[in-house]
Amino acid sequence: MELKVKRLHISSGGPLISVLNSEDARRLDLRALDRIKLKKGRKEIVTIIDITHDSYIKKGEIGLFEDVIDVFDVKDKEMVTAEHQPSPNSLKYIKKKLDGEKLTKHEIDEIIKDIVANRLTEIEMSYFAAGAYTRGFTLYEAAYLTEAIVASGKQLDLDAYPVLDKHSIGGVPGNRTTPIVVSIIAAAGFTIPKTSTRSITSVSGTADTVEVLAPVSHKIEKIKEIIKKTNACMVWGGALELASADDKIIKIERPLSLDPEGFLLASILAKKAAVKATHVLIDIPIGKGTKIEHIKKAKKLERKFEQLGKLLGMNTRVIITNGEQPIGNGIGPALEARDVLMVLLNKGPKDLRDKSLYMAGILLKMAGVKDGKKRAVEILESGQAYKKLQEIIKAQGGNPNIKPEEIKIGKFKYIYRTKNQGRVEYIDNKLLTRVAKLAGAPEEKGTGIYLNVHLKDKVKKNDILFTLYSENQSKLKYAVKEITDKIIIVNSKIIG
Amino acid sequence: MELKVKRLHISSGGPLISVLNSEDARRLDLRALDRIKLKKGRKEIVTIIDITHDSYIKKGEIGLFEDVIDVFDVKDKEMVTAEHQPSPNSLKYIKKKLDGEKLTKHEIDEIIKDIVANRLTEIEMSYFAAGAYTRGFTLYEAAYLTEAIVASGKQLDLDAYPVLDKHSIGGVPGNRTTPIVVSIIAAAGFTIPKTSTRSITSVSGTADTVEVLAPVSHKIEKIKEIIKKTNACMVWGGALELASADDKIIKIERPLSLDPEGFLLASILAKKAAVKATHVLIDIPIGKGTKIEHIKKAKKLERKFEQLGKLLGMNTRVIITNGEQPIGNGIGPALEARDVLMVLLNKGPKDLRDKSLYMAGILLKMAGVKDGKKRAVEILESGQAYKKLQEIIKAQGGNPNIKPEEIKIGKFKYIYRTKNQGRVEYIDNKLLTRVAKLAGAPEEKGTGIYLNVHLKDKVKKNDILFTLYSENQSKLKYAVKEITDKIIIVNSKIIG
Repeated sequence: MELKVKRLHISSGGPLISVLNSEDARRLDLRALDRIKLKKGRKEIVTIIDITHDSYIKKGEIGLFEDVIDVFDVKDKEMVTAEHQPSPNSLKYIKKKLDGEKLTKHEIDEIIKDIVANRLTEIEMSYFAAGAYTRGFTLYEAAYLTEAIVASGKQLDLDAYPVLDKHSIGGVPGNRTTPIVVSIIAAAGFTIPKTSTRSITSVSGTADTVEVLAPVSHKIEKIKEIIKKTNACMVWGGALELASADDKIIKIERPLSLDPEGFLLASILAKKAAVKATHVLIDIPIGKGTKIEHIKKAKKLERKFEQLGKLLGMNTRVIITNGEQPIGNGIGPALEARDVLMVLLNKGPKDLRDKSLYMAGILLKMAGVKDGKKRAVEILESGQAYKKLQEIIKAQGGNPNIKPEEIKIGKFKYIYRTKNQGRVEYIDNKLLTRVAKLAGAPEEKGTGIYLNVHLKDKVKKNDILFTLYSENQSKLKYAVKEITDKIIIVNSKIIG
Repeated sequence: MELKVKRLHISSGGPLISVLNSEDARRLDLRALDRIKLKKGRKEIVTIIDITHDSYIKKGEIGLFEDVIDVFDVKDKEMVTAEHQPSPNSLKYIKKKLDGEKLTKHEIDEIIKDIVANRLTEIEMSYFAAGAYTRGFTLYEAAYLTEAIVASGKQLDLDAYPVLDKHSIGGVPGNRTTPIVVSIIAAAGFTIPKTSTRSITSVSGTADTVEVLAPVSHKIEKIKEIIKKTNACMVWGGALELASADDKIIKIERPLSLDPEGFLLASILAKKAAVKATHVLIDIPIGKGTKIEHIKKAKKLERKFEQLGKLLGMNTRVIITNGEQPIGNGIGPALEARDVLMVLLNKGPKDLRDKSLYMAGILLKMAGVKDGKKRAVEILESGQAYKKLQEIIKAQGGNPNIKPEEIKIGKFKYIYRTKNQGRVEYIDNKLLTRVAKLAGAPEEKGTGIYLNVHLKDKVKKNDILFTLYSENQSKLKYAVKEITDKIIIVNSKIIG
């Protein structure tokens, strides 16, 4: 059938969708969510159809979303040929998973390929997530999934051994150990090509924080150069283009907060496999408000990470840490960058320093250093780690000589004080996060929260609990509204 | 936050969707598929948000689909207030089902209410279907679901006893027993308020076929009048408005052909409960190409129908019939209507007559008639059933005196003949259906297939196997292209 293109000037943000008039759909024996193949000369594209009974797509027309126009280069009012196209095989495999069967490597590959190429609808991807959630993945399936995600992106081939890497599972504000650990490991002479994400739900992702010190978006060739010079990098992971499958799955999982274990494992280890890591340390913070709240689940995940890592040829170790309160004092890109510099200058927050040294020590030990922890302390205290950070900043195009106090913090602030004498009993990480984001983080780097207290600290009446900084006065006001007497961020209890 | 309405002139065909610019979304700490409440004066509406990074929705604007404009009566460029709205509780219940837990009546009610009111996205509905599919429903859950669907629509309160009803599960072309059974039952003095659907996947639905004889779309008050006059009706079920939840679920199930048993049971019995049926006969045809292909599954379904019917206060009986070939000779609205009239005039196809008498006999027996089958035959042979059909046609506004040969059949035709002498071994119901639909059925009432043979019939070379009729020459050509030598519709094997 010949149809006239009607460009819709709207993007679906994903699936390749075209819209047919209900009469044409009937004529072609097509229903919503079926596929059609569109042809124009030698060009062709398979789209998922939506059907309208309204008049905005008339009989004989085919409405194309911008995502389709981008790939299938046609103009408004051009004629295209449309024909019925069978559903992709991946739908059979998704149903197989819903039926509780195991999937083969080929089947998982097909599903991921189709997701990445926008050949599946959100409904179909939801069925995949539901299958993963209700039926689970075997270790082998999780390995296939990891490999499929890796294959969907680019890889960093460094020709080095060992290649170290680390990852912290989210949910703890301020937990910015990465720049410190990377500096120590690289200063010890080991390769650590660290890629990080920007914030999705947190006040700042590692990439957001490092970006205060140096650019983090580099092409893969440039990343190799940085590593060649410094043994390390601290870059945004986007260059590896692994995110496509991940992002799409994350989006459809959100409404029900599904996050099936198999996806979590594969999503994390794919990033490690893509940089050909040989030794990987995974940090699972537990406690209220973290991603993995309970020790039992963390222990189970620990086992799976180690087994799956082995299957993928990576020596993987897991630590379970306390995530019930923020690490460090700063929360937000600039405030965290200050904390990081301070620790490397041997004057930063003790909790951030301790956790970073603990992790660096384990990684060094995994790489064969006898007393890893001791070596990590030496490297930090001697200033070698700081020097390494300066090298990395320079290689990435930042100013290596920036001082902590030179990092700009938002000029508008709101100081939150205690109402009573007491002790800090509880810090609501989720509310802290929400408030800092409303105030403008992480887009506005100087926005964030500086915490003056940690759990169990004694406080007097009118002591400062935290300061909320913002680059924008109206956003600050908007954020402050969220801090009511009822939901106070730091709950201080009267003693005696 | 204040936002300016941008009317999108596009309809989503379901979920209430508004589109935000990514900057505003960040500011409101919202992500795709979150909810916002929009207010304008006293009016308010909750919509699901989509986020665009393109420029077609600018900062400060909110794009509204037509579905939203229909409900939330605002104009292009008007200002509205937007605020974050928590997700509906039904999402928690859907997750509970995915986790394998049983749902309460209240929880199922909430889910169905939200589906009907377009408050759930297709992703979220898919999770519900996936939960139903992987975890199943208990009999009680299926009953709650049925009641929730009934409550979402209107009910036909007839103040009669008994109220008889029947239903055939689809997949068998030409299986048009309903008008015959209804005429017999009503002629016997029993109440049978039959509502039917139009075709979704078949060549003709009962409503499509009856419409050849009389109008089928009537308001609920008119339906009551028709029943008062005739004991019966044969109308399109749309008047009861039960379809909303059903249609939405059917749409999202299609890509994977999920059709969880609980939904099938509830969908069918809700239509019976809505007319307050007391005695219900369900026909499950089995055989290749039908909805329920295997006897084992049919038997299981039989038990569930009877149990669920009981729970809902309906005496429910199931018959499992042979569905491996079409019933009657005509397939398509007009050709089937001819068959129906012929049977009632005691000269129609024997298989259609036999099946109808069998079903009518059981229903009469269920209603307390001693030898139901014998009574059915008497009513048919004496012409009382035909007279009843005429009454119903008249009450519904049709011409009661129409003769079978006066029913118009498409004037373009294609005759399909045997190539060899042999015996009819196989009829591909799915291909027959596809071809008739491509030729224009059921929208064009005169389009369809007239079958000259049934399974096991002996044929000579060049005998007519079937004739394909169409109202439209180009559609006929298009349909004929599907009948290649390779996939022949009736496969005739040489004997001897």
